[in-house]
Amino acid sequence: MYQYKYLLEFTKNVFLKMGCSVRDSEIIADVFLAAELRDHASHGMIRIKDYYQLWKAKRINVNPVIKIVHESPSTAVIDGDNAVGMVAAHKSMEIAIGKARVAGTGWVSTRNSNHFGIAGYYSMMALKQDMIGICLTNANPLVAPTFSVSRMMGTNPIAVAIPAKDQPPFVADFATTPIARGKLAVAEKKGEKVAFGLVQDKMGKPTDDPSILKVGGSMLTLGGDRLHGSHKGFCLTAIVDIFSALLSGANFGPFVPPSVAYLPVLEKKVGDGTGHFFGAMRIDAFQPAVDFKTKMDDWIKTFRSAKPIDGQKCVLIPGDPEREAEERNMRDGIKLVPAIREDLIGIAKELKIDFT
Amino acid sequence: MYQYKYLLEFTKNVFLKMGCSVRDSEIIADVFLAAELRDHASHGMIRIKDYYQLWKAKRINVNPVIKIVHESPSTAVIDGDNAVGMVAAHKSMEIAIGKARVAGTGWVSTRNSNHFGIAGYYSMMALKQDMIGICLTNANPLVAPTFSVSRMMGTNPIAVAIPAKDQPPFVADFATTPIARGKLAVAEKKGEKVAFGLVQDKMGKPTDDPSILKVGGSMLTLGGDRLHGSHKGFCLTAIVDIFSALLSGANFGPFVPPSVAYLPVLEKKVGDGTGHFFGAMRIDAFQPAVDFKTKMDDWIKTFRSAKPIDGQKCVLIPGDPEREAEERNMRDGIKLVPAIREDLIGIAKELKIDFT
Repeated sequence: MYQYKYLLEFTKNVFLKMGCSVRDSEIIADVFLAAELRDHASHGMIRIKDYYQLWKAKRINVNPVIKIVHESPSTAVIDGDNAVGMVAAHKSMEIAIGKARVAGTGWVSTRNSNHFGIAGYYSMMALKQDMIGICLTNANPLVAPTFSVSRMMGTNPIAVAIPAKDQPPFVADFATTPIARGKLAVAEKKGEKVAFGLVQDKMGKPTDDPSILKVGGSMLTLGGDRLHGSHKGFCLTAIVDIFSALLSGANFGPFVPPSVAYLPVLEKKVGDGTGHFFGAMRIDAFQPAVDFKTKMDDWIKTFRSAKPIDGQKCVLIPGDPEREAEERNMRDGIKLVPAIREDLIGIAKELKIDFT
Repeated sequence: MYQYKYLLEFTKNVFLKMGCSVRDSEIIADVFLAAELRDHASHGMIRIKDYYQLWKAKRINVNPVIKIVHESPSTAVIDGDNAVGMVAAHKSMEIAIGKARVAGTGWVSTRNSNHFGIAGYYSMMALKQDMIGICLTNANPLVAPTFSVSRMMGTNPIAVAIPAKDQPPFVADFATTPIARGKLAVAEKKGEKVAFGLVQDKMGKPTDDPSILKVGGSMLTLGGDRLHGSHKGFCLTAIVDIFSALLSGANFGPFVPPSVAYLPVLEKKVGDGTGHFFGAMRIDAFQPAVDFKTKMDDWIKTFRSAKPIDGQKCVLIPGDPEREAEERNMRDGIKLVPAIREDLIGIAKELKIDFT
């Protein structure tokens, strides 16, 4: 078990050694550790190696000049200058919040960025400002549209954070596929099958094989099949892609660049880097914040008191499981699986920093 | 078969006779007929009787004064004054578009409204302005959150319309449940079962009985069960409810008033009427509209050329089926089932207008 602070400091030092500024290294470490605390380990320390190797391959810019390239009172387009995704995303969300302060809402589409960790982190930046925060991003193509075998889209997540008064905030953060990719990897490692309705083989046939992506298979959109609304999941994945990439000028759909160095740079480019989309809505642009947050408390309590199915837990409010995990992991420490620990020890050695 | 123009004129006359203004009657008729043309008959002529009976029961206001009650440069809250939903929604979307012209984007949350027909109609109002249009609404509670047997939410749809250049626009308009409620009614009438994963019985057990809502059953959220991501569907349904009702001051979740007169007014009120949410994003607040629309053409062509699963149709772009239906129904006419025709003949007689 590792203490939160130890991993935070280590992560900061890795990015400092790679040449990032102190402030950028702090932001990056904060996002990585937020993923670990919230039990989204698939977006946590396991990914440090990916960024390190992209940096070694000179495929990521540790000294970016992140710029607004187009704006209106409530909107901006940001060029991330091929920054580490967290740095471009943090800056973009700050700009969205700044716009919302003046115009009521702020909407930012960002191009030329990279994988940014958990989308929920940026949406939650709005909470302290009494704003609703929204964050979308496109990602490497692994997902097939309804009726197709072609891997055309990422697991394109949607995150929405909404403040409450005495209740904890509502924080939804979910891939627009039935499950996250990381869960397939876990099942594969354990030698387990997965449920039908999550992935298909290269011919588009249903399968329960979690390793199917390695042999031309693809993930399905939320809904699974047409009869259960997979075309609605396709709509969601597509909207995230269009808002993130087409409004900003990033690569869309099948052209999103890989977030790992062991995959080659794609031959065809239709824009710059990966794309994100951020929104901030000032609550008091609609009504006094305290009134809204009091109603949010009512909403949360109403749904928490829904009658559970016999033998099931009660209804969870989005953000509940992650908040419980945060408390537990902060108290008990964060566990790293041996393979990840080995990777980090190797990186520490190369960068001449401590890690045990 | 009825000609489009005949039904449009008839519908307009029904609402004129009920006391709506000429302009309001035209808007209402236009939305009803858009639903018929787009093969969303569940939101078309079948619903005229519901509005007529709400009016007879004095539960709807045909002479509303629709007002902005709060605003910022990019936002507004509208009080619909218990108007016919189409009238409040049309006015709200016009205000969102007006805000977007000045501030880049416009976001309107509307309370004290009623059922407004198809959400896609209002999102599509943005297209002619070279804007992206968004429309959400809450609705009567029929849907249970993951792990619960309580009917807490409506089928809360999401509509997003995005303009292209030479390609037709991208128009997504979907309930946040695997299927729309109307499809259950159709299966029931035909004496057919439905697939598992769409509804549950009053104990929360899976069922294939399409009439289960009549005996305490509920619809499931998109995803169907926890394993297939129903908690993500719950997030979506909840976000639509919060944006529509809590930002505006309408009734949320289980307290949304019934859209039919044969159900009594609810005892508990937590706000005013039904709530909607509208968004308009000016494309050139992000980049020149022609550049974006050209890329949208590329996006659409890329996805249309995805490789289909053997024996399946090619990938459909959101809006394709509805557009084909529009052309067909405009050309061949609109069919009304006998029971609906009888209802309309009865209403025509009472209002002393022609309908055959």
